[in-house]
Amino acid sequence: MPGSSFGHLFRITTFGESHGGGVGAVIDGCPPGLTLSTDDIQPELDRRKPGQSEITTPRKEQDTIQILSGVFEGRTTGTPILLLAHNKDARPGDYDVLRTLYRPSHADFTYELKYGFRDWRGSGRASARETLARVAAGAVAKKILRERAGTEILSWVETVGELEASIDPATVTAEAIESNIVRCPDPAAAEKMIERIKEVQADGDSIGGILRGYVRNVPAGLGEPVFDKLPADLGKAMLSINAVKGFEIGSGFEGTRMRGSEHNDPFGLDDQGKTRPMANRAGGTLGGISTGEDLSFRVAFKPVATIGKPQQTVTREGQPTELAASGRHDPCVLPRAVPIVEAMTALTLVDHLLRFDPMRPE
Amino acid sequence: MPGSSFGHLFRITTFGESHGGGVGAVIDGCPPGLTLSTDDIQPELDRRKPGQSEITTPRKEQDTIQILSGVFEGRTTGTPILLLAHNKDARPGDYDVLRTLYRPSHADFTYELKYGFRDWRGSGRASARETLARVAAGAVAKKILRERAGTEILSWVETVGELEASIDPATVTAEAIESNIVRCPDPAAAEKMIERIKEVQADGDSIGGILRGYVRNVPAGLGEPVFDKLPADLGKAMLSINAVKGFEIGSGFEGTRMRGSEHNDPFGLDDQGKTRPMANRAGGTLGGISTGEDLSFRVAFKPVATIGKPQQTVTREGQPTELAASGRHDPCVLPRAVPIVEAMTALTLVDHLLRFDPMRPE
Amino acid sequence: MPGSSFGHLFRITTFGESHGGGVGAVIDGCPPGLTLSTDDIQPELDRRKPGQSEITTPRKEQDTIQILSGVFEGRTTGTPILLLAHNKDARPGDYDVLRTLYRPSHADFTYELKYGFRDWRGSGRASARETLARVAAGAVAKKILRERAGTEILSWVETVGELEASIDPATVTAEAIESNIVRCPDPAAAEKMIERIKEVQADGDSIGGILRGYVRNVPAGLGEPVFDKLPADLGKAMLSINAVKGFEIGSGFEGTRMRGSEHNDPFGLDDQGKTRPMANRAGGTLGGISTGEDLSFRVAFKPVATIGKPQQTVTREGQPTELAASGRHDPCVLPRAVPIVEAMTALTLVDHLLRFDPMRPE
Amino acid sequence: MPGSSFGHLFRITTFGESHGGGVGAVIDGCPPGLTLSTDDIQPELDRRKPGQSEITTPRKEQDTIQILSGVFEGRTTGTPILLLAHNKDARPGDYDVLRTLYRPSHADFTYELKYGFRDWRGSGRASARETLARVAAGAVAKKILRERAGTEILSWVETVGELEASIDPATVTAEAIESNIVRCPDPAAAEKMIERIKEVQADGDSIGGILRGYVRNVPAGLGEPVFDKLPADLGKAMLSINAVKGFEIGSGFEGTRMRGSEHNDPFGLDDQGKTRPMANRAGGTLGGISTGEDLSFRVAFKPVATIGKPQQTVTREGQPTELAASGRHDPCVLPRAVPIVEAMTALTLVDHLLRFDPMRPE
Repeated sequence: MPGSSFGHLFRITTFGESHGGGVGAVIDGCPPGLTLSTDDIQPELDRRKPGQSEITTPRKEQDTIQILSGVFEGRTTGTPILLLAHNKDARPGDYDVLRTLYRPSHADFTYELKYGFRDWRGSGRASARETLARVAAGAVAKKILRERAGTEILSWVETVGELEASIDPATVTAEAIESNIVRCPDPAAAEKMIERIKEVQADGDSIGGILRGYVRNVPAGLGEPVFDKLPADLGKAMLSINAVKGFEIGSGFEGTRMRGSEHNDPFGLDDQGKTRPMANRAGGTLGGISTGEDLSFRVAFKPVATIGKPQQTVTREGQPTELAASGRHDPCVLPRAVPIVEAMTALTLVDHLLRFDPMRPE
Repeated sequence: MPGSSFGHLFRITTFGESHGGGVGAVIDGCPPGLTLSTDDIQPELDRRKPGQSEITTPRKEQDTIQILSGVFEGRTTGTPILLLAHNKDARPGDYDVLRTLYRPSHADFTYELKYGFRDWRGSGRASARETLARVAAGAVAKKILRERAGTEILSWVETVGELEASIDPATVTAEAIESNIVRCPDPAAAEKMIERIKEVQADGDSIGGILRGYVRNVPAGLGEPVFDKLPADLGKAMLSINAVKGFEIGSGFEGTRMRGSEHNDPFGLDDQGKTRPMANRAGGTLGGISTGEDLSFRVAFKPVATIGKPQQTVTREGQPTELAASGRHDPCVLPRAVPIVEAMTALTLVDHLLRFDPMRPE
Repeated sequence: MPGSSFGHLFRITTFGESHGGGVGAVIDGCPPGLTLSTDDIQPELDRRKPGQSEITTPRKEQDTIQILSGVFEGRTTGTPILLLAHNKDARPGDYDVLRTLYRPSHADFTYELKYGFRDWRGSGRASARETLARVAAGAVAKKILRERAGTEILSWVETVGELEASIDPATVTAEAIESNIVRCPDPAAAEKMIERIKEVQADGDSIGGILRGYVRNVPAGLGEPVFDKLPADLGKAMLSINAVKGFEIGSGFEGTRMRGSEHNDPFGLDDQGKTRPMANRAGGTLGGISTGEDLSFRVAFKPVATIGKPQQTVTREGQPTELAASGRHDPCVLPRAVPIVEAMTALTLVDHLLRFDPMRPE
Repeated sequence: MPGSSFGHLFRITTFGESHGGGVGAVIDGCPPGLTLSTDDIQPELDRRKPGQSEITTPRKEQDTIQILSGVFEGRTTGTPILLLAHNKDARPGDYDVLRTLYRPSHADFTYELKYGFRDWRGSGRASARETLARVAAGAVAKKILRERAGTEILSWVETVGELEASIDPATVTAEAIESNIVRCPDPAAAEKMIERIKEVQADGDSIGGILRGYVRNVPAGLGEPVFDKLPADLGKAMLSINAVKGFEIGSGFEGTRMRGSEHNDPFGLDDQGKTRPMANRAGGTLGGISTGEDLSFRVAFKPVATIGKPQQTVTREGQPTELAASGRHDPCVLPRAVPIVEAMTALTLVDHLLRFDPMRPE
């Protein structure tokens, strides 16, 4: 059964490979009447695109998005929206060596095992280029959430390797995140992170890290027990992103060390006399349903698998060999992953927003 | 849109509340011809049932499972299988106080918010009693995996609070896990954990911890990029379990501190001359597809929300108050969560096993 | 991929066989807050149950329905509703002969071919007994439609064999339909039909016929182009009923003989000055979307396959033989199919009602 | 919930409008390793394209299809396939009058009602141009069925208005169907049909008719009871095509006049000693599952709604008016619908072929 669709009521289906004709998504289920143009989408793609700074891959793609259907006179019609970006700076020749061997810790091996053969040009469908489609569709989802509920979706870099930023989530702004090329709103930590990534890059190596996802003005009531709980669908969304190895919400793994009496968020009354949790170790959901408090979660990214340093591997013919990858790769995927995490968050939330509507008690 | 189904080709739909007529599941898509009786299911339920030891809730439920359809002359017919357990030891009176207020960090608040009112008897649908249905259906999934691929699915307690076991996953046996009531195959750690849980229980408190999930003889090729990657669906499965706040596969959060050259699993040849990863920091998948290596992942459980210690909360009418919960609850959910984690693992894998079949290259 | 679920937002999954433990359905997605008891469901089941009159099978089943979950203090909670009827008057012995051969034009042959073996007791899952679950779930759907939109769903017998009733759909009442045992609101035709069915029954034979489905107060805007058009989903619903061989909406097959200038329904203004079609050859939809006019469609039922007359067939071992079926069967399925057609109509409409909500322009 | 996807394991999502950037489909779930190029698709599109003969609309579209993803070195990779045709001969000016009023019996009215506004250029998404995407995706499905099972899918015109062809389905060839512009393999009837369509066209009118669908070498065992029976999914597929008002399989409506003893297909042994039905009034399925006999069904098309003759209608502002449509339309949709019916048949069958695989008894 195919796996290139995400969401049920706001459903995207993505397509495309690193070096084929292009990449993109069909959105089916976008509510009608939303004003929409490429201006709503392009800025998000520019945050994701390669070559944007000295710490990302030098591959140059303009990633220019087109809207081919579903919009009429500047508004969505309620019919499928095709978002398409043609591939331009494809250099399959860079990947010739990958025809014949498997990169360690890369999808080369499993794609060939699963499908019988693989598009070896720039990782084919397993390329991070596929996430362009997610960011494009996510920009539409973000706009709906912003317009309907004032929802603000943020993500930032919290660690790179063992370097940790010190950040107060409550006060982080989008501007602070975008103020440096590593997208960490702690300027001192950001500086160290950038330096570290450059070292790693010079070394022909790569490095991992952790992103925070943070959402303000989350509509309450989102999440469908018992399987489609909001943290479950959010976790799935994150774990579907290339290189992600972990997800935690609220207190997460750290919270396992606590007792119930320490961990529970007592209910109280806020300034308006409204019943609310007085702390948010829960991270914004209870019983799998959003409380209306800020969503807070963390996403673990492993170091990029493709590195310049020599590594042991085996050819398709079963000969042990050594690989020192050329090609153009990111030393650290985190800065470019920020808009991807935001997009997947938006896609998860907008789908649950539409899923909630028909259930609303009358 | 409803959320009580899991899986696509082996699809379960669960139903039931803590104090209604019963709980259970319909399995639709179970392959025909499988020998099946309640003897395949009951032992798993007995591992999950309340009152099984001095460190679990004293609620007594026999959790006797019936198969009402889909089996004929001892074999599955390919038609839906209804698994049903009637509720017996329901004491809604124990929960009277919950009619009028919200337990801190519990689903009471969000269920009422989402659905307009709630079944307050024993948490209703949000009760961990719902997981009985998962374990019952998971027993069927386990049997298919065992028969078709020799797959062995294990789970064990790795931490309770800050107590950590020392375990070599490669050699753990089901017997070692079941040899103590906390289900931790490190006997020395198990003893300390049991002691700690008793302390917490005596204190009217609760405590969290981490489970390991571990699978041997995983069929290679499972997982459907780009959204239905195996770790994504496995993560969703785990994050849909009550009290789970985090999931990581392979190196997980720890791996974010490493460089690519340290983290990558080099390919080599095994004793049979077969190409395989020579390490398994990946945790058994690459590019979202199983490699055939053991699956290894961890699941973080927060401390149980319902505790005897007094806590601040608010009534439905908006009056601040204090709650010291009576009722019968687990001080630590981990020992009983072991079969649940195994069941959700089995349900995820069997669905992907069936999803892979039609894609198999000819 | 399993096929025992119907609907997306109001989703039912049915289970059960003719002679197993029972039959029923899980409803997932029923909106919370609906008052519901077995009194809402039992009367519909009584219209479907065997043995209700001299022209139906003499099998006696009380078909007593239980609600095991999803209802609390008389109202739906928004969680899955289990509807269950235990089997009582099962006489598998009646079917012994069917162990070894295939009834002509019956599912015996294909179930064995597809699943490798079959539950031969009373047709197993292929039995019309499965439709009990549809009628039970349909009663819930009907209630939602009635309460939310005043929708009235009717069905009646329009032909039996070549006997045709003369009926004005606009004025038919539920009472008129229920006023005779064949459920045809043309009393003169009904009398002839009953006589004909008795003849056929005496002859050890069976006979087919056509039902009309007719719906008043249909919410406008239902149907999701381009594939989930309302007539498409309604047609699928009808064609999923045992013995159905055809479906037509509005002018149907007859309309193919007309010219556009004759067939088109001109728009005009009604008494309230509202724009409406001035005729309804369309049958209540345009472009796959309900117009708000009455839905009108017809469903063709073949004669029941199981008959007493001797027929040629072949045993499982490949020996030609003759079969004169005993067992208890309907000579004409039409009278009992009326509530089934109504139920499937309700299930289709309620799902589309919920599907429409989130798309509603703001 | 969106409705632009069809199929579960071989799933297509179509997009595009009559006068937007283009139309097309994403296929998700195409098995890997299939040789595929536009040469497999273009001939089918040419059978559907406008302007192909004197009895179709004069709109000129080359309908040139591109494959933008999912194919590498001439073979499918198992990843999503984007099929895209840009719109060329769009003349929105022709439709200016439609901005302000509703064509009788057309989707103009319901699209505006459902979505709040509509793309009035050439019917937007409701245009038959959308079926281009179905035919393109269907060509891929046809190829898989042909290669895996030798399946041959045919469709032909059986009636135009009251003109009926006399055809023996068992011997019809694709060549005979394509030998005349009306696609009716009875040459004498074809001549009359062409004449009739020209008359109707000259008259500014339109006319309906009936297509036969006929499939040889159908894999046995396809269809998933109880809701996703093969006739149910096939019926839905047909009823989702523009202008379709009826569907019947096998004996269909005519069979309702028969007795069981006349209608049943007795089982016997064929020349190879294989058990088979000795007649095929069933039309190729029993109990919703394919028997392996030829599939035979009929599809009723109403006369095209858009005609040149003056008709009464109402403007968006509620003013009664008269419309004599200009624009370029087909006087009879049947000849161009032949490849559409074949495509939807192929899409239904290939999805059920893949759905059956994982259920196959071992």
